[in-house]
Amino acid sequence: MKQDTITLDHGSGGKMSRRLIAEAVLPAFDDPALRCLDDGAVLAVAEGRIAFSTDTFVVDPIFFPGGNIGDLAVNGTVNDLAMCGAVPRYLSVAMIIEEGFPRSDLDRILQTMRRAARAACVRIVTGDTKVVPRGAADKIFINTAGIGVVPAGVHVFGANARVGDRVLLSGTMADHGMTILTQREGLRFDSPLESDTAPLNHLAARMIEGFGPAIHVLRDPTRGGVGTALNEIALSSGVGIAIHEDRLPVRASVAGVCELLGFDPLYVANEGKLVAVVAPEAAREVLALMHADPLGKDACIIGEVVSAGPAPVVMETRIGGTRIVDMLTGEQLPRIC
Amino acid sequence: MKQDTITLDHGSGGKMSRRLIAEAVLPAFDDPALRCLDDGAVLAVAEGRIAFSTDTFVVDPIFFPGGNIGDLAVNGTVNDLAMCGAVPRYLSVAMIIEEGFPRSDLDRILQTMRRAARAACVRIVTGDTKVVPRGAADKIFINTAGIGVVPAGVHVFGANARVGDRVLLSGTMADHGMTILTQREGLRFDSPLESDTAPLNHLAARMIEGFGPAIHVLRDPTRGGVGTALNEIALSSGVGIAIHEDRLPVRASVAGVCELLGFDPLYVANEGKLVAVVAPEAAREVLALMHADPLGKDACIIGEVVSAGPAPVVMETRIGGTRIVDMLTGEQLPRIC
Repeated sequence: MKQDTITLDHGSGGKMSRRLIAEAVLPAFDDPALRCLDDGAVLAVAEGRIAFSTDTFVVDPIFFPGGNIGDLAVNGTVNDLAMCGAVPRYLSVAMIIEEGFPRSDLDRILQTMRRAARAACVRIVTGDTKVVPRGAADKIFINTAGIGVVPAGVHVFGANARVGDRVLLSGTMADHGMTILTQREGLRFDSPLESDTAPLNHLAARMIEGFGPAIHVLRDPTRGGVGTALNEIALSSGVGIAIHEDRLPVRASVAGVCELLGFDPLYVANEGKLVAVVAPEAAREVLALMHADPLGKDACIIGEVVSAGPAPVVMETRIGGTRIVDMLTGEQLPRIC
Repeated sequence: MKQDTITLDHGSGGKMSRRLIAEAVLPAFDDPALRCLDDGAVLAVAEGRIAFSTDTFVVDPIFFPGGNIGDLAVNGTVNDLAMCGAVPRYLSVAMIIEEGFPRSDLDRILQTMRRAARAACVRIVTGDTKVVPRGAADKIFINTAGIGVVPAGVHVFGANARVGDRVLLSGTMADHGMTILTQREGLRFDSPLESDTAPLNHLAARMIEGFGPAIHVLRDPTRGGVGTALNEIALSSGVGIAIHEDRLPVRASVAGVCELLGFDPLYVANEGKLVAVVAPEAAREVLALMHADPLGKDACIIGEVVSAGPAPVVMETRIGGTRIVDMLTGEQLPRIC
């Protein structure tokens, strides 16, 4: 008989743990490496470079319009690997589950993870499940770590922005963060918001295949938003970045909610967008390639790389003034991802 | 000014997150790959096989005699990789911290992780830090994932036990689990217990280097204890395992506490012990090699692999009877690791 809720037994490491893994996890992720139930997965690699990344997801609520903690966790690590110029290959999944968590919710999350992994063409090959007593964690937290293969000749990293480069953003800002916030606060709007969680690896691969060394930096502006991601790039590369407020893409519904609640979309998390710093001569063509991809159809050139100035990132405002765009200061939204 | 406690800001992804990473994490782990602050680490690998593993640590209390959640987290993944026959190379560290967690405790844990990584000769190359509001998690949870390199010709896996093989255990059982339990319950004894948390990769490497294909299976009996680990091996390999109660090593102080509190040491977690299934002709020499290592000085041959019978694991008891050793059923101790 299938139990309705997760119990401490399921995290014992004994018979019930094995049953949960056999009944819920193995069928969902269906991978020969996982099926071995060894302490880790053994995987073949070619000589070269791999990318290695990890991210933990503590989002609240765990289900939201556009996705749930499961696809967020898969896409999050897939995207971090893709931002290193890598082709994501393998993921680990480690869950902390609160005693009493509904088994049906777990199954729904696992199925979503399976679909997300398939969409991103990554294999889930190893994992871990812990159960903690009621109150010691809130519902479920999921960590993913991932390994990707960096193709020969690809060098995409945060310190690689050069003066004159163009700064591209693949689509609208703040969709994920404002969706989570409005869900958490129980706010309802005429045009419902939806998270943008999506795997960016296919888009990133096309950009790299098409334009190789002209792609200097890729970064997904998650926690801290586009404003913080641009600051990180500018600081890593020792350059300045100038952006233009009138070119920043924000969905009208999202902009309205941001205005109403006093959030600046530049600092709100995205989960399916990338910032690309690109050689100037390639920028128009890269933009055209992005426009041809569903995940890049709203892509814009939002600014350019300039010499390092007093502030890493400055913005020309709509009325023609100049504003410093600092990193996010203070916490806007806990448990956004 | 250094803040005394972790605040939600520290998990914002913005300025305070960066400051915490710069002040606390980068100096502790001091690695060029980590210092890049990119979305992941890019690492060179030779052609061959890698092992990939992950484990989350939710131990309570977080500080205990013999270690803390930090070395437990490093050693845990190091050991899982070593049990795949791999040489551990790279770790990720992902933390979930409760708002209000003392900064001094965090620093202490990070320093312990640094020392543990050095002792195991692994690099911490990528990571993630999330902060959740008070009450959404209990103090701190740490996930580590790891990558190791499997030397050519090494094939150590759970399904590789063969009839006639000898079963070796590297030292005494139940030290970690009973230490955590007595700490949590505030029990005091004349001879204080101590966790056995330790990196097993050097011992495992010596065994593999010395005896190559004679080492069939390695497993670290953590949650679920030696009893469960033996069941897993027997089930994976489609064999039976017979062990002898009078050969099972248990420290007298631990045996006493187990007896007092009604725990069977066969099911209590270990964090610095390994089970090895070894070709019979090599068993004596492997045992001698283990005895020469501080982590194997109490090693014993505890049993042998037999044909699959009605039960995967049986034990000859001290009084000459036979008992079935099942997997752990029910939860003995939540949050043991």
